[in-house]
Amino acid sequence: MHWLRFQHNGEQFDGYLDGERIKAVSGEVFSGRCRETGLVVPLAEVSLDTPCRPTKIIGIGLNYRDHAAEMNLPLPKEPVMFLKPPSSLLAAGRPVLLPEIARRVDYEAELAVVIGKAAWQVPASEAPGFIFGLTCGNDVTARDLQQADQQWTRAKSFDTFCPLGPWIVTELDPADLEIVLTVNGQVRQHSRTSRMQFGVAELVAFTSRVMTLLPGDVILTGTPAGIGQLHSGDAVTVRILGIGELTNPVF
Amino acid sequence: MHWLRFQHNGEQFDGYLDGERIKAVSGEVFSGRCRETGLVVPLAEVSLDTPCRPTKIIGIGLNYRDHAAEMNLPLPKEPVMFLKPPSSLLAAGRPVLLPEIARRVDYEAELAVVIGKAAWQVPASEAPGFIFGLTCGNDVTARDLQQADQQWTRAKSFDTFCPLGPWIVTELDPADLEIVLTVNGQVRQHSRTSRMQFGVAELVAFTSRVMTLLPGDVILTGTPAGIGQLHSGDAVTVRILGIGELTNPVF
Repeated sequence: MHWLRFQHNGEQFDGYLDGERIKAVSGEVFSGRCRETGLVVPLAEVSLDTPCRPTKIIGIGLNYRDHAAEMNLPLPKEPVMFLKPPSSLLAAGRPVLLPEIARRVDYEAELAVVIGKAAWQVPASEAPGFIFGLTCGNDVTARDLQQADQQWTRAKSFDTFCPLGPWIVTELDPADLEIVLTVNGQVRQHSRTSRMQFGVAELVAFTSRVMTLLPGDVILTGTPAGIGQLHSGDAVTVRILGIGELTNPVF
Repeated sequence: MHWLRFQHNGEQFDGYLDGERIKAVSGEVFSGRCRETGLVVPLAEVSLDTPCRPTKIIGIGLNYRDHAAEMNLPLPKEPVMFLKPPSSLLAAGRPVLLPEIARRVDYEAELAVVIGKAAWQVPASEAPGFIFGLTCGNDVTARDLQQADQQWTRAKSFDTFCPLGPWIVTELDPADLEIVLTVNGQVRQHSRTSRMQFGVAELVAFTSRVMTLLPGDVILTGTPAGIGQLHSGDAVTVRILGIGELTNPVF
C-alpha cells in the first residue's frame, strides 16, 4: 500500500492511494488501528505533507562505495550516523530554500526507511518486522559548511533540507531498488540499493543499539555517487522504482 | 517561576513550584495561555518528568575555553553544533544506563536554554525574547566512541544520555551563573557561564540562522573543564546556582 498525509480544505489527513484517488483514514496508521473515514479525493487535488512526522531523522554517511570514493574518504567500518532535525522536513512539491550563508548546496538521493514500531536493540534478522515502509528522501547538504565544520550537523540541518515523500510504500523489499536523481530532467545519480555498504536491516539494527526508534522515525540510508550542486530555479527529483517520485523546486 | 512536568496518580501534568508544593496547570505553558487546575501536591510526592518535550536538542561543543584545552582541541571560531535525539532525554532521578558497547562514558554539566517561541533568524539582541527559561543539562557522552567516530552523534545519542531538569527557571540572567558537577558528592566541574566562548544570546542567534527553533526546544550550551568518567553505582549531580540540582544515578 501507499500511505500518505495530505491537506484538503484546510484539514490534515492520513490516507492511502487507490489508483489516482486518496482514501482518507483516521486512527493510527503505523499500528494498523485505523479505518476509512469515507472521504475520497483525487490525488491531483490535494496538497501533500511529508508522509510521516518523525521524532528523529537518522542519516547514514558514506554508505555507497562509489560515493565514498568521490568524496576521497575511506569507507567506514561501521555506519557513520548523524541526525537531521524535524524542522528540516519538506513535503513533495515544496521549495528547497538555499541559505544565504552556504555557497554550495548539494542534493543527495536516498532511500528512506520508516519505522513502524518501537525498536530497541533489534537484531538484523528481526529488523524487517520493525519497518513500516519505504519512501524517497533527499539529504540536502551545504557542502562548503560540511567541509568547513568538523561536525556535519549544521550543513545538513537547515529548514527545507530534508525533502521526504511522496508516500510510504509497504511490503517492498529494499534490497535492490533502482534509485535515480535528476536535476531539471537530467540524470545526476543512478544506482541501486544493492550497492550499499550496510543494508537496511543492518542499519535498523545498528541504530537501534544506540537509540530507541519510534513509529514514524526515519533512517536515510546514504547516497550513491554523482552528488552535485543545486541552483535557484532547479527542479530536483528523487525517483526510486517501486516507490515513486519526490520532486522539489529550488529557490 | 519554576516550571516543571510531573506525574501524579498515573497522570501527567504541567505545573509550577510554590515553595515545597507544585500547583498544576492546564493549557500552554510556553505561551502563557494556561491556568491552575486546582491540583496542589507536595514536590516530594511526585515523579518528575523532563521539564519540556523538545522537538530537537541542539548541543554546542567546545564552548568553554578550559574544556577545549583539556580536549587538546582548538577553540572554534563559530559554535560547533550537534544534535541529540529526543529519545535520549532523561528526567531527574532516573538512571543513566551505561551502554555495553561503550568503554568510557563521561558526564558533561551544561546550562540548558529552553526556547519559548518560534525563532528563525533572530538577531542576538532580540534572542532573550525567544527564551522561555533555563534548566540543568548533562550531555552524557561515550568518550571512546566520540574519539573513534568522525561524527559525535552516536557517542551522544544513547537512550538516557540527556538528563534534563529538574525544572525551568524563568526570568534568570544566564550571563554569569555558577555551574558545578559532583559525582558522589565530590566536585568534578566548577565554573561560571561567563566563561563561555559564545554566550546564550549568540547561540540562539546562531542556531536560529540554521533551523527554526520551536517552543520547548533545548540548546545545551557546552561544558566546562573537568570532564571525567561515570561508573555504575555513581550518583551524578549538575547544580546551577539560581536553578537547582539535577541528580541521576548511574546503572
